[in-house]
Amino acid sequence: MAEYLSDIEIAQQARMLPITEVAAKAGLAEEQLECYGRHKAKVDIHSLKDLPQKGKLVLVTAINPTPAGEGKTTTSVGLADALCGMGKNALLCLREPSLGPVFGIKGGAAGGGHAQVVPMEDINLHFTGDFHAIGAANNLCAAMLDNHIKQGNSLGIDPRRIVWKRCVDMNDRQLRNIVDGLGGIANGVPREDGFDITVASEVMAAFCMASDLMDLRDRLGRMVIAYTYDRQPVTVADIHAQGAMAALLKDAIKPNLVQTLEGNPAFVHGGPFANIAHGCNSVEATTTAMRLADYVVTEAGFGADLGAEKFLDIKCRATGLVPSAVVLVATVRALKYNGGVAKDALTEENLEALEAGMPNLLRHVSNIKGVWGLPVVVAINAFPTDTPAELALVEQRCNELGVNVALSEVWAKGGEGGRALAEEVLRLCDEPSDFRFAYELDEPLAKKVEDIATRVYHADGVDFAPKAARMLRQLEEQGFGGLPVCMAKNQYSFSDDPKRLGAPEGFRITVRDLSVSAGAGFVVALTGDIMTMPGLPRVPAAEKIDVTPDGRITGLF
Amino acid sequence: MAEYLSDIEIAQQARMLPITEVAAKAGLAEEQLECYGRHKAKVDIHSLKDLPQKGKLVLVTAINPTPAGEGKTTTSVGLADALCGMGKNALLCLREPSLGPVFGIKGGAAGGGHAQVVPMEDINLHFTGDFHAIGAANNLCAAMLDNHIKQGNSLGIDPRRIVWKRCVDMNDRQLRNIVDGLGGIANGVPREDGFDITVASEVMAAFCMASDLMDLRDRLGRMVIAYTYDRQPVTVADIHAQGAMAALLKDAIKPNLVQTLEGNPAFVHGGPFANIAHGCNSVEATTTAMRLADYVVTEAGFGADLGAEKFLDIKCRATGLVPSAVVLVATVRALKYNGGVAKDALTEENLEALEAGMPNLLRHVSNIKGVWGLPVVVAINAFPTDTPAELALVEQRCNELGVNVALSEVWAKGGEGGRALAEEVLRLCDEPSDFRFAYELDEPLAKKVEDIATRVYHADGVDFAPKAARMLRQLEEQGFGGLPVCMAKNQYSFSDDPKRLGAPEGFRITVRDLSVSAGAGFVVALTGDIMTMPGLPRVPAAEKIDVTPDGRITGLF
Repeated sequence: MAEYLSDIEIAQQARMLPITEVAAKAGLAEEQLECYGRHKAKVDIHSLKDLPQKGKLVLVTAINPTPAGEGKTTTSVGLADALCGMGKNALLCLREPSLGPVFGIKGGAAGGGHAQVVPMEDINLHFTGDFHAIGAANNLCAAMLDNHIKQGNSLGIDPRRIVWKRCVDMNDRQLRNIVDGLGGIANGVPREDGFDITVASEVMAAFCMASDLMDLRDRLGRMVIAYTYDRQPVTVADIHAQGAMAALLKDAIKPNLVQTLEGNPAFVHGGPFANIAHGCNSVEATTTAMRLADYVVTEAGFGADLGAEKFLDIKCRATGLVPSAVVLVATVRALKYNGGVAKDALTEENLEALEAGMPNLLRHVSNIKGVWGLPVVVAINAFPTDTPAELALVEQRCNELGVNVALSEVWAKGGEGGRALAEEVLRLCDEPSDFRFAYELDEPLAKKVEDIATRVYHADGVDFAPKAARMLRQLEEQGFGGLPVCMAKNQYSFSDDPKRLGAPEGFRITVRDLSVSAGAGFVVALTGDIMTMPGLPRVPAAEKIDVTPDGRITGLF
Repeated sequence: MAEYLSDIEIAQQARMLPITEVAAKAGLAEEQLECYGRHKAKVDIHSLKDLPQKGKLVLVTAINPTPAGEGKTTTSVGLADALCGMGKNALLCLREPSLGPVFGIKGGAAGGGHAQVVPMEDINLHFTGDFHAIGAANNLCAAMLDNHIKQGNSLGIDPRRIVWKRCVDMNDRQLRNIVDGLGGIANGVPREDGFDITVASEVMAAFCMASDLMDLRDRLGRMVIAYTYDRQPVTVADIHAQGAMAALLKDAIKPNLVQTLEGNPAFVHGGPFANIAHGCNSVEATTTAMRLADYVVTEAGFGADLGAEKFLDIKCRATGLVPSAVVLVATVRALKYNGGVAKDALTEENLEALEAGMPNLLRHVSNIKGVWGLPVVVAINAFPTDTPAELALVEQRCNELGVNVALSEVWAKGGEGGRALAEEVLRLCDEPSDFRFAYELDEPLAKKVEDIATRVYHADGVDFAPKAARMLRQLEEQGFGGLPVCMAKNQYSFSDDPKRLGAPEGFRITVRDLSVSAGAGFVVALTGDIMTMPGLPRVPAAEKIDVTPDGRITGLF
């Protein structure tokens, strides 16, 4: 196998354009930018609010994730570069990476190979400070909440019913479960508590759903942070924290502009979890891109059962956005993994396993067409280890079943390698579509969960644990019944058992609890244990990261 | 009494210059800047390293702080503006504010009235993200430390002897004392723990002592974070965290350039506590300013017994910087408070109390001249409530004792109101001085503490509690005996009893514990209880802070 440059080596060899030049490609003048160094800028959206949202929206999603990696971000970047290379006015919208995975196992999240957004190190580290601002807003609220209790607790908050957690943008399992407020009367009120990673906070989710700063301020005010001794919800507005939290977020809310390796414009803004939250970049960034470009390429987290479902049923419903085409990313490696091959044997040709893994891909395709009525193309994200026979098999099976398919070689070749995919996407964008949601908003919460489970996951039905049944009643009583549902499910399987790969049948979904994200604007249904604070592995990626005397970063991947 | 505009109103009415124009006044070209929006920039110090440090350094310090406020930052800003207004090439070096006080009681820390640095809201909120970067580096180290223990603890770290705390840039007393790692084997190792505010972290102190990024990396690696079961120190380098921590700080380490209300250049960079750390802006900023300007005005935290002592004995010793003049700030109100007047009666004329408070001022003056051999001028920072008789009395007493004194009206008049002070400073800068340290580095640690206590505080002697005596031996054995000493003492009194105002006599200092900040490069001697995580007051300032639809911030003070 040939030697390949690492992502950071490719990124550092790139000759980046001044961000003002990149902005000009997107139709943005220098006065509409706040530059952060030479290669990052925040965009003033006030000056753009009156423009029509003229763009065609292309959603990039994927089969269920595997340890093999699928390459949604890489495909999104390459597709945008391919469109730009064909003379189209295209803009990319991605999520911001979290520091947690950067220092843990997964590494950076700015694409890969010759399909990356740059400056890669900056984007993967503090970038323009958005996540720190979100963390500070979250933690200010927490400090004001505990201070309210310590200073007399006039609202009657029950310290055992506080649902707001502090957060830190770090994989730090030691903080998952803590007891704080120890040390006597001067030091707070002892209670059980815990930290989430910043990307799992509701501030992040509300931030990504907000249409502007004042809408964000209102959303922050509505968030339920605790319950009183008589079980009434206490909101951020009750402790007068929403103004200061919004002040902390006044710059963060502006979309960040960077560039691809080929110098094309990309918004990278916001990054909520795709299980307990909706898993896509900010509404601000997507709607701004729709005003500027003819084609907007964006991605949703995890597989299409989680990311695309929420993108379509939550984000598109709230904003009126309608995708013109969907790209479903798969790799030969990931399909083989779905077909039962172990992680360390994925480099060997295995046509049987590949064929056995296809049903996962096909179910996602039929969901996108059948449930949401959208045109879809499968993008096979080529890996150097794929054999010609394997690639041919996937293409053949798709063709037999009338599934659009295109080989994507953007990892190795950049935009040029995405030409076939881009042509297919352009063709689909001109086709008529019949977009509809997987469930109706005016149904009861339980019915909405059941619609997602049976129609999208292909479950036989839903069981609500006693606590979940109680919460269903309580949330309907408190007036949250009209919200959409955000499913918190493991990302690996259509079912709630992460080991059931492929296209499982004959299973039921168990909802063990529900909670409201009143600021983000959805009810979260929890199936199984969802990790909201990851831990570091035995040898964290951080141990390899270093700096050189000229301020360059090494070892980031 | 007339109506005055608030600080934020004055700041928001200011017409700021583009930061590139401000930079040009400091001799910096656009290529040497990384702009953060239009009015903030980071400075590339690599291009300046070979320039000589030609500037004359002016240290602004104060009498012991009181609830009345003294106005060190206001005086520093006004003095720099006055010097620039007189045609001098002057540069200001200040600390960055912490979010804790902004949302707590004290409010912002960017000067006041017509002597402020702007953009005031940005500087007081996230600014260029330095403090968040410092917090992230600190917390990455904490996560890697606990992860090391959870993954098998090959270093044999004793979880009861971890000295590294997590941090957050927030006043959050609930986090002072916690138990973390709860929830069973998958969730860490239960232990006692706690959070400090970010400005109290050793990362902040080391950051401000570092000469460049690689020096910072080495300092980070040297930090002692825990002890093993056989009581051997464990450093950051032992868990391989210094590279990733330095990567998180690669941008933060570059000095931040902003402007005064009069459009003159100011570095605002770093901000360590002035009790457990050394309390002044970064070495990077000060030495860079010395290369660019003829006069560099900087301030040190708290009163001259803490801030100036550490500036002179720690920072100047480590860097070779020698101040040419010292400005000692006092207010009539603060002198009256030192003379026994209650906080709510400070607006009434009271010549007796004023006279009774003068010994505090005079002791600081005699220390600066006698202990360190530096020329000093007293700056009376005028308040609207000061009476002519009060101002005359201070001037008269100073004149009688041969103490240089100047009235500073920069709060009301900006640089023009600092003309008399600036003229006096210029005169002192041309006088010969005989700078020396308060103690010699090669003395034992105990002797260094005693020298500070007897020579600077005028104590009769020092008592080392049993734990402190044990630590003295241990630190000398571990090779830390040659470091300078950083006194952690309350800021209100020369003594270790915060209630003994004025110029107390006949007291001893009790050192209850010592610790090493091996990365910052000093041994901390703790007297009394030093708060490293403040709490919020009954009605936090945060409750008044809000945003307007155009993204303006209100209620910040």
